[in-house]
Formats: sequence, C-alpha cells, structure tokens
Amino acid sequence: MITTSIPCELCETSGGELLWQDDFCRVVLVDDPHYPGFCRVILNRHIAEMTDLNENERQRLMKIVFLVEGAMREALCPDKINLASLGNMTPHLHWHVIPRFTDDRHFPNSIWGEVKREKTANLSSISILKQTVRLRLG
Amino acid sequence: MITTSIPCELCETSGGELLWQDDFCRVVLVDDPHYPGFCRVILNRHIAEMTDLNENERQRLMKIVFLVEGAMREALCPDKINLASLGNMTPHLHWHVIPRFTDDRHFPNSIWGEVKREKTANLSSISILKQTVRLRLG
Repeated sequence: MITTSIPCELCETSGGELLWQDDFCRVVLVDDPHYPGFCRVILNRHIAEMTDLNENERQRLMKIVFLVEGAMREALCPDKINLASLGNMTPHLHWHVIPRFTDDRHFPNSIWGEVKREKTANLSSISILKQTVRLRLG
Repeated sequence: MITTSIPCELCETSGGELLWQDDFCRVVLVDDPHYPGFCRVILNRHIAEMTDLNENERQRLMKIVFLVEGAMREALCPDKINLASLGNMTPHLHWHVIPRFTDDRHFPNSIWGEVKREKTANLSSISILKQTVRLRLG
C-alpha cells in the first residue's frame, strides 16, 4: 500500500473541468490537448483501490464509468474506448475514460506509451460530449 | 469501431495460463517476465467495448475482475493495483489486472510507459496467487 504525506491533487482540486458530480463521485474533462474528450471519473473520498469499496459502491462507480463511455461513443464515435484505473502517481481512485482514434497520437499504443505520430486533435465535438454526459448522468 | 478480418488472438488462444473459466469469461496468468502475477480477465465472446454488454453482463465481468484484484492483494501484497481495458491491438474485451510495486520496472509509470529501472522480478508468490484466484473464484 502506498502511503504518502504529500497533499493529494484529487482531494485538493477537481482534477479537470467539472461535468457532473454527486456526493459520491464526479466526472471531469481532462485538459489534454492531444486527447480532447478524455474524461475522468473520480471518487470523492481518498481511497486507493476498487476492492477498498464495498460491492454496492463498486457497482455505483462503474455505472458512472459506463455511462460516460456510452456518452463518449454517442458524441465522438471513437474507434476504441480505453478504460483504466492506475493511480500510481495519485493513489486516489479515479478512472480514465479515453476516446481513441486509429490516427491519434499513440494508437495502437496506450496513451502512456510511445508516440506514433504528431497530429492536431479535433476539438469540434467536445461541446456535444459535454451535453451528452450531462444529459445521460442527469 | 475497429473492424478487422485478421484472426483474433483471444478467440483463437486462451491468452495465457488458464487459472479459471466459466461459460462467460476466463482468468489467465500473463507470461510477462517483468510482471509475474499479471492476470487478464477475458470475455469469451468477441466483443470490443464494455457498453456492448448489457448491465448484468458488465456487472458479471467486473465482479470477476474485482475477485482477481482481491486475490492478488491477498497473495502478493502489491503497492498498487492497475486495472485497464484497452484493446487497441486486440479489440476483444479483456481486463488487465496488474500488481505494481514501487521498485518494479516502470513504477510510477504505467507498464506501457517509459522503463524506469531494470529489475529481476520476484516469482516466489505466484503459486500462492494461482491457489488464491482458484479458491476465490471457486
């Protein structure tokens, strides 16, 4: 288990542009120029692992992750969705929900892997994504 | 959506050493010398995204992912668990469940990121992990 005394970024800041929140978690748009539409679902409490939550809480968090995935597919029509909960640098439970395109900067690598090409990402559908996330999550 | 006519590795092979399976999915141990204990939970059907499954199926698959995470924490006591469903190269739904240690080859990067150090991984607890996965998944 990682213990740290340094302040937690996800306890102290929203972690991105807030699209939706309740008393349990929040959905933010990540500020990544290469991956417009990249969202995170962030637990409000400072907990590191999914198995630190009880079964109902796990289902509740994953339901939001999948609602965001669905909104992203509807709004952006990506070639693939990438989901990941890593937390090596920030051990505060959060899910990356990343729209991937076959001509994006790293495809078919993960976005944490080797850059495959330089490309200016298309920002045109982001307002539609924001609306769709808010609509689906109510 | 990625369409491909090339054979799917996860339709044609188990994808690793089979630890458990039912008619819906399977759990395999990945053959990665740097990450002993790295497991994958693989849907048996060839489907790309979590939101291609219905809600019950999504819950069923994630339940197995979290049972593997729990077994991994019990058997290996990793510093962090990494969960990811990417599928950019193999768009057949599978979850990576990866035990991470602060002195492993890439930490705190993802295992797809830049190598931080060379290290011979410790294989001593893998038989305990196999037993624990089989015990927890019945």
